[in-house]
Amino acid sequence: MGGMALDLNVDTVQLTEDLVNIESVSGNEQQIADAVEEALSGLAHLEVQRFGNTIVARTNLGRDERVVIAGHIDTVPLNDNLPARRDPGEGGNLHGLGTCDMKSGCAVALRIAATMPEPNRDITFCFYECEEVEAERNGLFLLSQSNPELLEADFAILMEPSDAVVEAGCQGTLRVDVLTRGERAHSARSWKGVNAIHGAAEVLARLNAYEPRKPVIDGLEYHEGLNAVFISGGVAGNVLPDECRVSVNYRFAPDRSEEEAVAHMHEVFDGFELEICDSAPAAMPGLGVPAAAAFVEAVGGTVNPKFGWTDVARFSVLGVPAVNFGPGDPHLAHKADEFVPLEHIRTVERQMRVWLGETA
Amino acid sequence: MGGMALDLNVDTVQLTEDLVNIESVSGNEQQIADAVEEALSGLAHLEVQRFGNTIVARTNLGRDERVVIAGHIDTVPLNDNLPARRDPGEGGNLHGLGTCDMKSGCAVALRIAATMPEPNRDITFCFYECEEVEAERNGLFLLSQSNPELLEADFAILMEPSDAVVEAGCQGTLRVDVLTRGERAHSARSWKGVNAIHGAAEVLARLNAYEPRKPVIDGLEYHEGLNAVFISGGVAGNVLPDECRVSVNYRFAPDRSEEEAVAHMHEVFDGFELEICDSAPAAMPGLGVPAAAAFVEAVGGTVNPKFGWTDVARFSVLGVPAVNFGPGDPHLAHKADEFVPLEHIRTVERQMRVWLGETA
Repeated sequence: MGGMALDLNVDTVQLTEDLVNIESVSGNEQQIADAVEEALSGLAHLEVQRFGNTIVARTNLGRDERVVIAGHIDTVPLNDNLPARRDPGEGGNLHGLGTCDMKSGCAVALRIAATMPEPNRDITFCFYECEEVEAERNGLFLLSQSNPELLEADFAILMEPSDAVVEAGCQGTLRVDVLTRGERAHSARSWKGVNAIHGAAEVLARLNAYEPRKPVIDGLEYHEGLNAVFISGGVAGNVLPDECRVSVNYRFAPDRSEEEAVAHMHEVFDGFELEICDSAPAAMPGLGVPAAAAFVEAVGGTVNPKFGWTDVARFSVLGVPAVNFGPGDPHLAHKADEFVPLEHIRTVERQMRVWLGETA
Repeated sequence: MGGMALDLNVDTVQLTEDLVNIESVSGNEQQIADAVEEALSGLAHLEVQRFGNTIVARTNLGRDERVVIAGHIDTVPLNDNLPARRDPGEGGNLHGLGTCDMKSGCAVALRIAATMPEPNRDITFCFYECEEVEAERNGLFLLSQSNPELLEADFAILMEPSDAVVEAGCQGTLRVDVLTRGERAHSARSWKGVNAIHGAAEVLARLNAYEPRKPVIDGLEYHEGLNAVFISGGVAGNVLPDECRVSVNYRFAPDRSEEEAVAHMHEVFDGFELEICDSAPAAMPGLGVPAAAAFVEAVGGTVNPKFGWTDVARFSVLGVPAVNFGPGDPHLAHKADEFVPLEHIRTVERQMRVWLGETA
């Protein structure tokens, strides 16, 4: 172990800053994982386990309800945005890599872990690695495969930036390539061939004509989308191309499975050759579950639908309703100038504490 | 000099084979240019000049008419197709790199140069380098810039493969990029952006709806074409792209100038941003000129329009009517298995000799 020690007895803004200053780009989480493990292991009310650079810490108080509070400890690559920089005064923002996505959320969770030895619900804290890279390396995914029992719960909170407001569920995502075929010919004698790029006109026309669904689920209006994200074709400057490839990204609402999403693409692009590239399931908001409803009430009652895909879908797959709730504007994630408003950190922490039974 | 000597007193099929066996991929023409220069310099009726690896040889007989007979001495890269291989017997084909494009044409010209000291027209023979690569290195282009007076003539024959039938004029070629613009957004919230690839639907629709002209010029029906040859767009798998680029190749008939071709693209793609990439002018067939009409009559009267672009356009720019006329199927040019029918070589040579006054 060794390395930098983490003091959990500072205020949460300071703890955020301390976490940000331990660089932890995906693949380089050992130091921050060591620090988190060491800090939590000193707490008698927590059972701490480590899997790679993913740390799980659980209370075992025999409460009627168990909730997961999870956050990833990695960041996207450095972009000349470390160390953290705090605006002067008590208001303002904390700037730097990971301030928003999502070390401020991790700091809130760590402060609750350290200072609430007897929450009114049992808690499974999960600080995990490699969220910003391919799914196969994602710590939460790996844990759900190796030790799904550790993620069993009535409800889960993923502390992704959500502007300090609950964002429920998430939309799924599917990528398919739509292919058109032609026949090569010299462009000086084009009537001897068939132009595959011209054949893609109909694919783009269907995309333009597409009316995305906006289903209302648990009172939340989702908003689907169907978009070309890449297009390519061409052989040489004097040759009619024999293939054109349109890569399409379908974002689908939580009332649709991955299989249904694929079937829908076959409907939309009927008559064209499709290659299914990758997909990730949507997550139902699950706000009908009592544990979820209680949480929403405790944190102010406002709920927005989550349009982007997040790891809440991994909980959904395990049958655990989950929401996104954390400090910071999600649109600032992955930007060089990301920051978190200090007020968000304080609000999220206060609301979480009240929900977990702090009466102070 | 040194190197391989070229004997012009063999039959033309043999001379073709000898020329083919002097490898002369573009940029490597020194050896073949040396051989051609040495062989022609021994002929008293010719004035020989050299420019780089381009050889010009002229009769100066004071005839009423002067014609250019031109051929390039370079080839496309080797493709496991040397040395030349001749089918057994008197019929059949000669196989190998350059047999068709266009050492058989050069062999006919060299044989005429060597054996017809008193043609009924003055002749400017031109054997030039680097036709198969960028225009800036093309020997005929360089000569037209440095010594245009050497190319002055009433008529020109470019001995490109044309199936031993006159192919008159050539179509021009213009490449323009049609750009569509959008606004990036995360594909999970696509309604916040504008998809530039979807915007290209209209570009492709106009290409599909386009009716190419087929103008009849000097009795020949040309056939224009407007085709996308490349398309590209895309930023990332989860981002609405803000630019899409459709590269379009317009092949235009000889009654249109490059400027008119550009203006036509602005009409067709009205409302879109265009980038003009490159162009080359068409060449009028020029069959109304007496020297051209006499040639066509001498070689059998059949004339086809030339759809592809060739160096005849360089003569057109100089005000010299020019046609393509040579042994070999133009569709075999640049193919690994190119060949020339021996009968084509003999026919073309015989017809040229008759036209130049041989009475044998």
